[in-house]
Amino acid sequence: MIGRRLVNGVEASAISVDDRGLQYGDGLFETMAAQNGRVRNFARHMERLAEGCRRLGMPMPPADLFELECERALEGLGAGSVKIMLTRGPGPRSYRPPAHPTVTRIVVSSAPKPRNDPDTGIVVRLCETPLGLNPRLAGLKHLNRLEQVLASAEWSDPAIAEGLMSSVDGRLVCATAANMFLVRDGRLLTPDIRDCGVAGVMRGIVLAAAQELSLPAEIRDLRPADLADAEEVFLTNAITGVRPVGEIVGIRRYVAPGAVTRKLMEWTTRAAGA
Amino acid sequence: MIGRRLVNGVEASAISVDDRGLQYGDGLFETMAAQNGRVRNFARHMERLAEGCRRLGMPMPPADLFELECERALEGLGAGSVKIMLTRGPGPRSYRPPAHPTVTRIVVSSAPKPRNDPDTGIVVRLCETPLGLNPRLAGLKHLNRLEQVLASAEWSDPAIAEGLMSSVDGRLVCATAANMFLVRDGRLLTPDIRDCGVAGVMRGIVLAAAQELSLPAEIRDLRPADLADAEEVFLTNAITGVRPVGEIVGIRRYVAPGAVTRKLMEWTTRAAGA
Repeated sequence: MIGRRLVNGVEASAISVDDRGLQYGDGLFETMAAQNGRVRNFARHMERLAEGCRRLGMPMPPADLFELECERALEGLGAGSVKIMLTRGPGPRSYRPPAHPTVTRIVVSSAPKPRNDPDTGIVVRLCETPLGLNPRLAGLKHLNRLEQVLASAEWSDPAIAEGLMSSVDGRLVCATAANMFLVRDGRLLTPDIRDCGVAGVMRGIVLAAAQELSLPAEIRDLRPADLADAEEVFLTNAITGVRPVGEIVGIRRYVAPGAVTRKLMEWTTRAAGA
Repeated sequence: MIGRRLVNGVEASAISVDDRGLQYGDGLFETMAAQNGRVRNFARHMERLAEGCRRLGMPMPPADLFELECERALEGLGAGSVKIMLTRGPGPRSYRPPAHPTVTRIVVSSAPKPRNDPDTGIVVRLCETPLGLNPRLAGLKHLNRLEQVLASAEWSDPAIAEGLMSSVDGRLVCATAANMFLVRDGRLLTPDIRDCGVAGVMRGIVLAAAQELSLPAEIRDLRPADLADAEEVFLTNAITGVRPVGEIVGIRRYVAPGAVTRKLMEWTTRAAGA
């Protein structure tokens, strides 16, 4: 079972070549975990999507409609993941958005992918492809992802699970498809994403968990040099949850999962099951 | 006649929702002027596309194939424009490019658009949306165009023909869909595009024309303040050619077209007719 595709609520696997999502990357997406036929943390994903629509000046379809379509896409599959793409729809050749766009809703479900992370944490590397800065786009999960594509193409060793990306001005920001956290002196540290990076749903959940667990957490600028004296490092992503890092190639190894990471893994797994 | 669409050489107007061009903006495009059933400056467009493929690590289809498809798309239309999109093709959900991608070729022709630029030059404004810096993507005409979309959405007054964009660090770089040139002390000045902006085909033609006409030309960093003491300003684009600017809102008016701009308009029009 490879999953199902819906375009504007109809089972279909194609969109117009005139769609602005293709022409300009003019749209947003969400990648969401699913179990028992439903999307996890659906409300948080819809909040981010609505915020993206607000900032891009695009109408947001009703969240109820997406919920229904996600459930339909998950029929016969139950668990796995759902990806939503929402574009500004078809338009003539012009960067200028139509005054009254007809957005395109795309919902694609996938079967669960086998996870084979080592028990001692994943191995990650530092990428050379930098992240450009643009406060207008920062935080959004938009369809302009060439930087992540190029960063992901930097390695092919299957033993390396992810790559960490820095901004053009040398701040450590995220992994190609995850946010990152450091633990130092028992405090959680995660990069500020004011001018690049994505406001990850799992990042938000971990920050909320930290508050509930009375773990001090700080959003701040970090540098690759900060990796050397971190006690623990983990990545967050809506599909893979909290993922401990056991090694950063050429930098150092970590005992993984460390105590703080383990606590957050348990908390988020429990929350997901609730 | 609204033009014709070919996808991988077949008359079609749809692509897969799994196409990486849609999912990530993982691809390139060219927008080209056409007359007498043929694309103008075709070789230059193909050179830029090939350079884009090289830098994105994508296979470049034979230019002959595109030439044939452009001619087919222009049948019954003759003049107007052709847009090519070349994507890394369909792929599973992953930023990492497939090792052996099957690229998607999209060729779309359009009838000529009526031009009604005032004889005294177009009116342009300064945009607030900045351009992020990324040397890995600079110069390429790639499908990640949200910055241009947001900049174009900043105004709706039809009397304003274009918007000038600056980089996040305050350098003047280009218009939303054109390169820009200033004339000062009889010298041509055009922004360096080492870390943002597009290596425009018409920009290249104007730089070549300058050499032939013994006009001194300089590629360098420019600031919005440089607009105030320029004698002439013009924009370049493959479709609209050399386009004199008569006014930059809130900055100043120019006598347009100025002598240098006029010389380049004549040169490029003659070259296009040849």
